[in-house]
Amino acid sequence: MAILVIGSIGLDTIETPFSDGPKVDILGGSASYFALAASYFDRVNLVAVIGDDFPPALLETFRVRQIDLTGLQTATGKNFRWGGRYHLDFNTRDTLFTDLGVFGSFAPVIPDAYRSSEVVFLANLQPGLQRQVADELGAAPRLRALDSMNHWIDSARDELTEAIRRVDIVLIAEEEARQYAGTPSLRAAARRILELGPRTLVVKQGSYGALLFTAAGDFFTAPAYPLEEVRDPTGAGDSFAGGFLGYLAQRLTTGAELALADYRRALVYGSIMGSFACEDFSVARLESLTADDIAARYREFVTYTHFDGNW
Amino acid sequence: MAILVIGSIGLDTIETPFSDGPKVDILGGSASYFALAASYFDRVNLVAVIGDDFPPALLETFRVRQIDLTGLQTATGKNFRWGGRYHLDFNTRDTLFTDLGVFGSFAPVIPDAYRSSEVVFLANLQPGLQRQVADELGAAPRLRALDSMNHWIDSARDELTEAIRRVDIVLIAEEEARQYAGTPSLRAAARRILELGPRTLVVKQGSYGALLFTAAGDFFTAPAYPLEEVRDPTGAGDSFAGGFLGYLAQRLTTGAELALADYRRALVYGSIMGSFACEDFSVARLESLTADDIAARYREFVTYTHFDGNW
Repeated sequence: MAILVIGSIGLDTIETPFSDGPKVDILGGSASYFALAASYFDRVNLVAVIGDDFPPALLETFRVRQIDLTGLQTATGKNFRWGGRYHLDFNTRDTLFTDLGVFGSFAPVIPDAYRSSEVVFLANLQPGLQRQVADELGAAPRLRALDSMNHWIDSARDELTEAIRRVDIVLIAEEEARQYAGTPSLRAAARRILELGPRTLVVKQGSYGALLFTAAGDFFTAPAYPLEEVRDPTGAGDSFAGGFLGYLAQRLTTGAELALADYRRALVYGSIMGSFACEDFSVARLESLTADDIAARYREFVTYTHFDGNW
Repeated sequence: MAILVIGSIGLDTIETPFSDGPKVDILGGSASYFALAASYFDRVNLVAVIGDDFPPALLETFRVRQIDLTGLQTATGKNFRWGGRYHLDFNTRDTLFTDLGVFGSFAPVIPDAYRSSEVVFLANLQPGLQRQVADELGAAPRLRALDSMNHWIDSARDELTEAIRRVDIVLIAEEEARQYAGTPSLRAAARRILELGPRTLVVKQGSYGALLFTAAGDFFTAPAYPLEEVRDPTGAGDSFAGGFLGYLAQRLTTGAELALADYRRALVYGSIMGSFACEDFSVARLESLTADDIAARYREFVTYTHFDGNW
């Protein structure tokens, strides 16, 4: 089976309180983090655009993880660049600059070979594009998921609503769930989003973990991994999505119908992959993982959260 | 067995975005919330001071729950009053006024009948008083715990350190753990606090739950209960402490040595009692609970957090 991701490949400039000066033009973007994280669970097909100034050597990062780049376009012009500065607690950051470059006119093209992908992730993109890709793929994928952000809630709310109507899973940050639904209550926000059609809502809470709500009324929570040191939280949310959807894709491969238990474990794998992403700049930690690293962290999550019965 | 609490009994004025005007002079204070929450687990002995303007009818709240008031002093002067205003997300609040009144010259006196209390909670107080009470009780209590706040970390840091050296358990809010330890890493902050002598640190994260660190290196996390509606989060932290220490006291009653499993469940009971506190103004919800309400919420916590094995 395979997971299709449509998103950005960026060149990030990151400043943190603990780094010696900024890290310049390091690999970033939603599709990069998602693809690397998901690649530990299933095959990944990537649709994105890079500029003609993108360093070819960085593409090796994807090839080493056997991520399919058939859907990667190279356009004339500058690559998408983003600069951010983190503060002491890493829960807040300032955007220093956003240069969309060729990503500003990104027109996703899904290669025929990708059309059999069972799981699709519409990463944070202009909602009109998310809707268009969802319509193009139709009902073929077993699971369609999207992420979004405050910018689109403000500027393209109706289009975002149409995109949400077309997916099975919404993954969104806590503040954005509240903003979109117009209520401080996450339970109420979850109901409003799930009423639009998705069966599952994942609310990402950064260093506090994540919540899972289902249209059937189920609720589940996974904490964040208690990292000794956060080096760079950029991409943690997309890595979370990669672990979450990656595990679900792996389960679908077994031929099983997905049960609530699968979604629970998927949330934990999301939290695990998000935690690894924070351990180093760019995707460095996501390049060097082993199956044992992931399994060991999963066992830690069991002991960190179970209080009754066996652990 | 019994739990001794030394803390405040306040008259609070609370404004929230959803209430019709402020609630004036409602029962508050750390000892009130703690005692009510703990009373569902074990006998509670209360040491506090009220002013001569304190409405006697409010004391019925404690008597109904069979909380022992032998240690309650009435002093000439005004009662401790605090006013606060909450914002939309309830995670931040402004203090509108603090009138210490008779609480400003509180000199705790421990009645002889209280000296056999196995569990002692030194609620948020001037750290010199916490230290004095800890010295007075000596090694007799099986468990001694304290809470503190930013004000004392700023103004009485050395005294707070001396108080921390004398307890088994520190319960403290996340920002205050970071502030006291001078590090953004909660793991590093936990080590620094536990190096002073306590065997257990509970880090309270408000609407995100709580973390447990032990001197032996164990870690555990409990989420907050996903409330449909928060009416008033005042006292949630002290109610958390009441559930946490209440459950441990109940376990000690069985003659058992406390194991890590007990502390894990205690953290969940803390989160449960904190969640009930938020459901209504003042201690209203903590007055009307049944054992079934608490047991039902405990079962919900199992399903909300367990992802492998049985739930």
